[in-house]
Amino acid sequence: MPVASDLDSIIFWLDLIGVVVFAVSGALTASRKQMDVVSFALIATVTGIGGGTIRDVLLDRTPVFWIANPFYLAIGCGAALIVFFTAHVVESRYRVLLWADAAGLGLFCVIGAETALASGAPVGVAVLMGVITATFGGLVRDVLCAEVPLILRREIYATAAALGAATYCLLDALGVGRDLTVILAFLAGFGLRAVGLAFGLSLPAYRGRPGRDYGDGRPD
Amino acid sequence: MPVASDLDSIIFWLDLIGVVVFAVSGALTASRKQMDVVSFALIATVTGIGGGTIRDVLLDRTPVFWIANPFYLAIGCGAALIVFFTAHVVESRYRVLLWADAAGLGLFCVIGAETALASGAPVGVAVLMGVITATFGGLVRDVLCAEVPLILRREIYATAAALGAATYCLLDALGVGRDLTVILAFLAGFGLRAVGLAFGLSLPAYRGRPGRDYGDGRPD
Amino acid sequence: MPVASDLDSIIFWLDLIGVVVFAVSGALTASRKQMDVVSFALIATVTGIGGGTIRDVLLDRTPVFWIANPFYLAIGCGAALIVFFTAHVVESRYRVLLWADAAGLGLFCVIGAETALASGAPVGVAVLMGVITATFGGLVRDVLCAEVPLILRREIYATAAALGAATYCLLDALGVGRDLTVILAFLAGFGLRAVGLAFGLSLPAYRGRPGRDYGDGRPD
Repeated sequence: MPVASDLDSIIFWLDLIGVVVFAVSGALTASRKQMDVVSFALIATVTGIGGGTIRDVLLDRTPVFWIANPFYLAIGCGAALIVFFTAHVVESRYRVLLWADAAGLGLFCVIGAETALASGAPVGVAVLMGVITATFGGLVRDVLCAEVPLILRREIYATAAALGAATYCLLDALGVGRDLTVILAFLAGFGLRAVGLAFGLSLPAYRGRPGRDYGDGRPD
Repeated sequence: MPVASDLDSIIFWLDLIGVVVFAVSGALTASRKQMDVVSFALIATVTGIGGGTIRDVLLDRTPVFWIANPFYLAIGCGAALIVFFTAHVVESRYRVLLWADAAGLGLFCVIGAETALASGAPVGVAVLMGVITATFGGLVRDVLCAEVPLILRREIYATAAALGAATYCLLDALGVGRDLTVILAFLAGFGLRAVGLAFGLSLPAYRGRPGRDYGDGRPD
Repeated sequence: MPVASDLDSIIFWLDLIGVVVFAVSGALTASRKQMDVVSFALIATVTGIGGGTIRDVLLDRTPVFWIANPFYLAIGCGAALIVFFTAHVVESRYRVLLWADAAGLGLFCVIGAETALASGAPVGVAVLMGVITATFGGLVRDVLCAEVPLILRREIYATAAALGAATYCLLDALGVGRDLTVILAFLAGFGLRAVGLAFGLSLPAYRGRPGRDYGDGRPD
């Protein structure tokens, strides 16, 4: 298996791929809302860089990664343009959107945890940072587009991000090599989400009863 | 009345209690949406630490409090777990959620104002910081769960947070002892919100007329 | 044409006007939701300072502008009060809201781009920062008030902000004087948005097909 020997290089590439796939998910959401091409570029870019931006702000890493390297923005805009002209050939844009989001989730939970550990944060913080990095880009996308946040959907979502981030922390603590750690943690996060998506699986949910709605907007 | 003599200790404990009650409100919202246990933990933790995180980022306090002390995250997850297994015994989860949110609002408007003043900010900034700290954790919760933000509900909400923060600033300026200042400011903020909740009271609202809806999504 | 000769002074005044018009748009949204006067003040202030706050946090400019100069908060509260007592005389509050938002968008895309360039950021970052500064205050307003984000409306929106910011960067690179650059860039951004609003114009949008809804909440 060809594996880059340089961690920074691996992280750079994973980050780049993560921005691309999240940007695609953002552009597909924009297509479903019939936006114009500039709005495509904005939604795609913000979705792509959103998770990493919150990560960098919380960890006080300055400058934020896309200010240090605006190539990320070009990547986001490029992905938006391609989707703008090709989305109609996809059979189900929503399905592709979900899978792009899943790939981004797998990548960003690893990068979030890695960055947090590298800045000296303890394990609990690293896991949460992985989950936040993996989910908040998509959250900004869903808020901008007035969509139901994916975390509300039944299939395993936050759990997959938490598993990926926790796997990274565990393997890192065990002294496993970084390349392998990154790959296994990505497979854990993405894999669990993929299982949830492919089979419509969900974890046992809270089953007290759904919130009742008394008709005055004050449920349960 | 047994009162801690050390301000930092008081603030630490109030912060901790605020995180717990907001986490409970987040977990109860998750229960109403029938989420799985990891989503419970995420929503609860993010709701608990959300207000303080925005406070620390805006005041450029680094590291953010829960990165410096990840015990807060354990507290949030613990609260989520307890709610996951016990929420069904509560008669009205929404009612408990509202009261937990009210307690958190009272605590966080005080802590927000205190932190802002301690960092040298003027009074106007301290009041706004109190309100933002008290309301934005719940806002993130409501956005994540696609709920109507509590600020849109009729009962006194932002007003209570503003009163608590302003009370803190006033008593602090008058040279009242800190323990007493913290306690009275909390009682002012929580008390006003409690009155609003218990009696369904609201301040006189703007009464021009509600926004009309022309049927094309362009009301009034 | 009377033009201030001092850039900082121009920027200060434009920033102030931008906060006022966005605060007015926030207060009008609060009026349409029949909120009380303190909620008016909160929504108006947060809408007014939201875009610039995100700009300052992302660029790591400390302290955030309204912490350094709380006069901005007084301006926001004052605008909220005036709207609270006068909104009923306006024939269409929603129309005024849209135009106030348009003026703020024109001002803030210029200020966002200017601030980013002044902090050494490259052109791509400056354009995105202009768009984010111009649109995120309104986004926070719409989220707080559970309104459909303006970016989802059909009329040219993000495109106008991008044009204004790009115009600023272009004229700045060409060595045009700063006063003229600011004025022309504002006219470009606000003008394009005004054309969109006045004539209901929109750019060609993605026209594959709207997202289908399969009835289970999983459209297309």
